[in-house]
Amino acid sequence: MGVFSPFFLQDPEGLFPCILGHEAAGVVESVGEGVTEVQPGDHVIPCYQAECRECKFCKSGKTNLCGKVRSATGVGLMLSDMKSRFSIGGKPIYHFMGTSTFSQYTVVHDVSVAKIDPQAPLEKVCLLGCGVPTGLGAVWNTAKVEPGSIVAVFGLGTVGLAVAEGAKTAGASRIIGVDIDSKKFEVAKNFGVTEFVNPKDYEKPIQQVLVDLTDGGVDYSFECIGNVGVMRAALECCHKGWGTSVIVGVAASGQEISTRPFQLVTGRVWKGTAFGGFKSRSQVPWLVEKYMKKEIKVDEYITHSLTLGEINKAFDLMHEGGCLRCVLDMHV
Amino acid sequence: MGVFSPFFLQDPEGLFPCILGHEAAGVVESVGEGVTEVQPGDHVIPCYQAECRECKFCKSGKTNLCGKVRSATGVGLMLSDMKSRFSIGGKPIYHFMGTSTFSQYTVVHDVSVAKIDPQAPLEKVCLLGCGVPTGLGAVWNTAKVEPGSIVAVFGLGTVGLAVAEGAKTAGASRIIGVDIDSKKFEVAKNFGVTEFVNPKDYEKPIQQVLVDLTDGGVDYSFECIGNVGVMRAALECCHKGWGTSVIVGVAASGQEISTRPFQLVTGRVWKGTAFGGFKSRSQVPWLVEKYMKKEIKVDEYITHSLTLGEINKAFDLMHEGGCLRCVLDMHV
Repeated sequence: MGVFSPFFLQDPEGLFPCILGHEAAGVVESVGEGVTEVQPGDHVIPCYQAECRECKFCKSGKTNLCGKVRSATGVGLMLSDMKSRFSIGGKPIYHFMGTSTFSQYTVVHDVSVAKIDPQAPLEKVCLLGCGVPTGLGAVWNTAKVEPGSIVAVFGLGTVGLAVAEGAKTAGASRIIGVDIDSKKFEVAKNFGVTEFVNPKDYEKPIQQVLVDLTDGGVDYSFECIGNVGVMRAALECCHKGWGTSVIVGVAASGQEISTRPFQLVTGRVWKGTAFGGFKSRSQVPWLVEKYMKKEIKVDEYITHSLTLGEINKAFDLMHEGGCLRCVLDMHV
Repeated sequence: MGVFSPFFLQDPEGLFPCILGHEAAGVVESVGEGVTEVQPGDHVIPCYQAECRECKFCKSGKTNLCGKVRSATGVGLMLSDMKSRFSIGGKPIYHFMGTSTFSQYTVVHDVSVAKIDPQAPLEKVCLLGCGVPTGLGAVWNTAKVEPGSIVAVFGLGTVGLAVAEGAKTAGASRIIGVDIDSKKFEVAKNFGVTEFVNPKDYEKPIQQVLVDLTDGGVDYSFECIGNVGVMRAALECCHKGWGTSVIVGVAASGQEISTRPFQLVTGRVWKGTAFGGFKSRSQVPWLVEKYMKKEIKVDEYITHSLTLGEINKAFDLMHEGGCLRCVLDMHV
């Protein structure tokens, strides 16, 4: 099962031609020499963020950004021989984000796959490969939102809604959703959003709108779009003295964020998150368990189901704005 | 006693004509109606950062940025009547940073003055009005540097040296001083700097030099200049996954910082500090006590002593680069 989420299409690391796709779940077909943690038949979720448990990053206890296979996955290859496992007509096709899940079969590094409960429905938990954990973890691990906090979420796609869900479970008192598509507001209520603001309804900058709505600014803000202008607004809507803004969206290659340094000198904090700070192999199985116990939503993000052959329709659905996640069946 | 530190001259809030000066110590001459916490004869340090203990900021427990008198001090006036207490030839002269200490006498808000040990030498502890606490607090309160950390300090003036001193007492394993004036390096050793880097000695960007020197980047960096280009370098020399950069310097009005958002998404944190996060009225007396017990340096930052009448010579000394702090005697 793969998920259509073109989140990283403008990522500077995309090399073409490649097999896209990075949110998925599946069954191990075979394993290479020396692989011990998974066996054929195991149910797994491919993880674009690896976890080797041996590198400086994994051992630091401070980050989920494993460095073991980055040099290979960053250029669309496998580490052992720095070659691709895909080809067409004798010519290599690159891997994408170390996962390449828009495919019936793929090849991933052993450190890039999380073994999960075989009872979990693959056509649901495939969402736990990226967007939902990213949003939840941005709140729980990166921002560490406390009960009573005022939170702003910029962008009410799957990641933004998962931020709202995370903020709700963290006990936020107000969760303000910001989106230029007002149609998204009704759905967002189901994920914990308590108030809605459409920047198009105001003449003044959105950061000023939010500062005015919250007696000085929000405690935490999350940018879930990938727009550098919105990243600035998300920082500047934070409360002086303590407001923290977390960049969750991925901007296009070469784009830059900017602000007046006074924003930071007066106490705001600017952070970012990748995969919500979750350690992939260790914590994706835990997220699957939380889903099985109905402690986190997953089904609610799935608005469409198609087959791999219908993938271009999934692009159209995403552009139309009414699609959160479209699950693709790879075997039809 | 006043200190010559033209730190804030380009601050957007400077209104002219005004009486400059914000680092000082003195004796209370008289108090206004309702003032209870200080009496004539008390020894005090004026605090540009007030502490009222009543406002949303003071009560938050999250910041030292009191809001009580900001609306007045920000425009060079006193809060009760929004007027100045200074004039010449019948025309008002503005206050500066709520302190205006280049003067035999000044008038400050009651929430902007810290009562200190009368045994403390005013011609020394005047330095505890801004620069030294700012550097120490940036390390202790804002960054919370842990033992064993690798630290980079950009700019080896008084604030940068106080950062080095703070990092040394926090147990940093390496303290890398960065300055384009190599003459500063010898003095910096006395404040804890263990290695020196002059960006002029390298062709590659200074952030890359530091990343190469430290196997991936520093754990904490501090910008103590007020240069937005250096602020970017200070962020980007931080280690992926956890490096934290603190902006301590104050940039000129209108200038902006920028970077690729990927720097934050991959785990770096961008913060700032004002007065090192110290609560002024509560903690300046504590810093004075630490000085009296020889737990923090103060005398070592004083390289020159002049009189108020010689203030223009102090400007020249500062431009020459060999002056850390020049204490001015106001009554000669």
